[in-house]
Amino acid sequence: MYSYEYLNNFTQHVFIKMGCSKEDADMTTRVFLAAELRGLSSHGMIRIKDYYQLWKANRINIKPNVRIVHETPSTAVVDGDGAIGMIAATKSMEIAIKKAKNAGTGWVSTRGSNHFGIAGYYAMMALEHDMIGITMTNANPLVAPTFSVSRLLGTNPIAVAIPAKNQPPFVADFSTTPIARGKLAVAEKKGEKTLPGFVQDKNGNPSIEPTILKEGGSMLTLGGDFEHGSHKGYCMSAVVDIFSAVLSGANFGPFVPPSVAYLPVLDEKVGEGTGHFFGAMRIDAFQNSEEFKSKMDTWIETFRNAKSAPGKPAVQIPGDPERELEEKIRKEGIQVIPAVAKEMKEIAESLGIEFEIL
Amino acid sequence: MYSYEYLNNFTQHVFIKMGCSKEDADMTTRVFLAAELRGLSSHGMIRIKDYYQLWKANRINIKPNVRIVHETPSTAVVDGDGAIGMIAATKSMEIAIKKAKNAGTGWVSTRGSNHFGIAGYYAMMALEHDMIGITMTNANPLVAPTFSVSRLLGTNPIAVAIPAKNQPPFVADFSTTPIARGKLAVAEKKGEKTLPGFVQDKNGNPSIEPTILKEGGSMLTLGGDFEHGSHKGYCMSAVVDIFSAVLSGANFGPFVPPSVAYLPVLDEKVGEGTGHFFGAMRIDAFQNSEEFKSKMDTWIETFRNAKSAPGKPAVQIPGDPERELEEKIRKEGIQVIPAVAKEMKEIAESLGIEFEIL
Repeated sequence: MYSYEYLNNFTQHVFIKMGCSKEDADMTTRVFLAAELRGLSSHGMIRIKDYYQLWKANRINIKPNVRIVHETPSTAVVDGDGAIGMIAATKSMEIAIKKAKNAGTGWVSTRGSNHFGIAGYYAMMALEHDMIGITMTNANPLVAPTFSVSRLLGTNPIAVAIPAKNQPPFVADFSTTPIARGKLAVAEKKGEKTLPGFVQDKNGNPSIEPTILKEGGSMLTLGGDFEHGSHKGYCMSAVVDIFSAVLSGANFGPFVPPSVAYLPVLDEKVGEGTGHFFGAMRIDAFQNSEEFKSKMDTWIETFRNAKSAPGKPAVQIPGDPERELEEKIRKEGIQVIPAVAKEMKEIAESLGIEFEIL
Repeated sequence: MYSYEYLNNFTQHVFIKMGCSKEDADMTTRVFLAAELRGLSSHGMIRIKDYYQLWKANRINIKPNVRIVHETPSTAVVDGDGAIGMIAATKSMEIAIKKAKNAGTGWVSTRGSNHFGIAGYYAMMALEHDMIGITMTNANPLVAPTFSVSRLLGTNPIAVAIPAKNQPPFVADFSTTPIARGKLAVAEKKGEKTLPGFVQDKNGNPSIEPTILKEGGSMLTLGGDFEHGSHKGYCMSAVVDIFSAVLSGANFGPFVPPSVAYLPVLDEKVGEGTGHFFGAMRIDAFQNSEEFKSKMDTWIETFRNAKSAPGKPAVQIPGDPERELEEKIRKEGIQVIPAVAKEMKEIAESLGIEFEIL
């Protein structure tokens, strides 16, 4: 087990060695570590190699000028200038929150960015301002729309964070596919198969191989097949792509620049970088904030008291599993699977910093 | 086959006989007929009986004062005053569009309403203003969250309409369950079973009986089971419920007043009526409207050209199936299944208007 401090220190050093300012390295590291703390190791240390490779390939701007390029009282388009996704995203969400303070709500579509880690991190930034936070992003084109074998969409997650009073906040953070791509990567690193219903081979045959994406296979959208509503997962994923990239002027659909080495970097561009979408809604732009939060407590308690089907666990509130994992991980430390630790060691050696395999 | 004019005239008369103003009856009828034209008969004539029964039970306000009760530059809460859902919803979306004209975006949460028909109708109102339209609503509590047998959520649909240039608009309109409840009602009226994966009995056992909802059974969320992401469908449905009802002060979760006769009307209330949520985003609050619409054409063409899996139909763009059906139905007329026509005849007789069973 690694301590928070150890991995925090390591990650900061990686990004400082790449040339980031201390402030940008901090901003980036906070999101990587938040993923590990919330038990989403699929978005934590395992992704450092992706950024290391992007940096080696000169595909990220280490000294970006992240800025508003268009705005109205409640909206902005932010150009991330090729920044690390965590930097473009944190600054964009700060702008959405500022807009909401004045106009009731704030909505930011961001272009010229890269993979930003866990969507929930940015949505949760709104909570301390008594706001609802919303985050979306497009991602590596690995998902096929209903009926297709063409990889046109990412796992395109949506996160929504909503404050409560005495209850912990409601924090939904989910990909628009049955499983997150990072979880396939974890299964692959562990040498495991997947359940049926997540991926298909390049001809559209069902598959349980997490490596199938490296052989032209694709992920299915939430719902799985048409009969069970995969077109609804496709709709959601498409909306995320359009809000994140067509509204901002980023690359959309199959043109999203890949953050994984096994996808080719295309010559054709339809915009700048990866796109994200952020929203902040002031609670008191709708009703008294304390009353709203009391009602959220009632909502949460109502759902927590739902009757479970025989043999099934208790009903959880979105955000419960991650919060419970965070309590445990803060106490026990952060587990890094051996294959990832080995990659971290290699990165450390090439950058001339220290990393110990435990 | 019925003509548009015949059913339009019939529906207007039903609502005028209930005591609606000509204007309100028109506003309501437009949404009922839009459902039939778009091939969503699950939300068309079949639902007239629901409103007739609500009216008989004195559960709708025929002379409502639909009004803003709280607002900021980009937000409003609308009190529907117990109106027919189509009236509260049309007026709320008009307010969202007006807000967007001034602030870039407009967001309205509505309470004190009733079932509003097809969500896509209101989202599409934004299109002619060069805006993106968004609609959500909560609904009859018939859906169980992941692991549960308690009916705490509705099929809680989301609709998003996005304008394009030469291509028809992108119009996603989908429930957050594998299948819409209205489609179960249609299967029941036709005496058919459903596929597995849509409903469970009151003990959580899988079922293929569309009538199971009348025996304490429940619908599953999009994803079907936990392993295939039903918690993501639960998250989406929960967000729709909270935006529609906790933000507005409507009834949420299991407290949503039922629009079907087989659910009991609860004594306990946590707010007023059913809740909806509406959004309008001006395209040019983000970027040049013509450029955006050209990019949407590229987006749509890219997806339309996706490669289908062997034996599967062509990939469709959200809104394609309904638009194709509308062309066909405008030409051929509207089919009403015999069990629904019989109900319409009974309503016509009790209200003293004419209706012919074809």
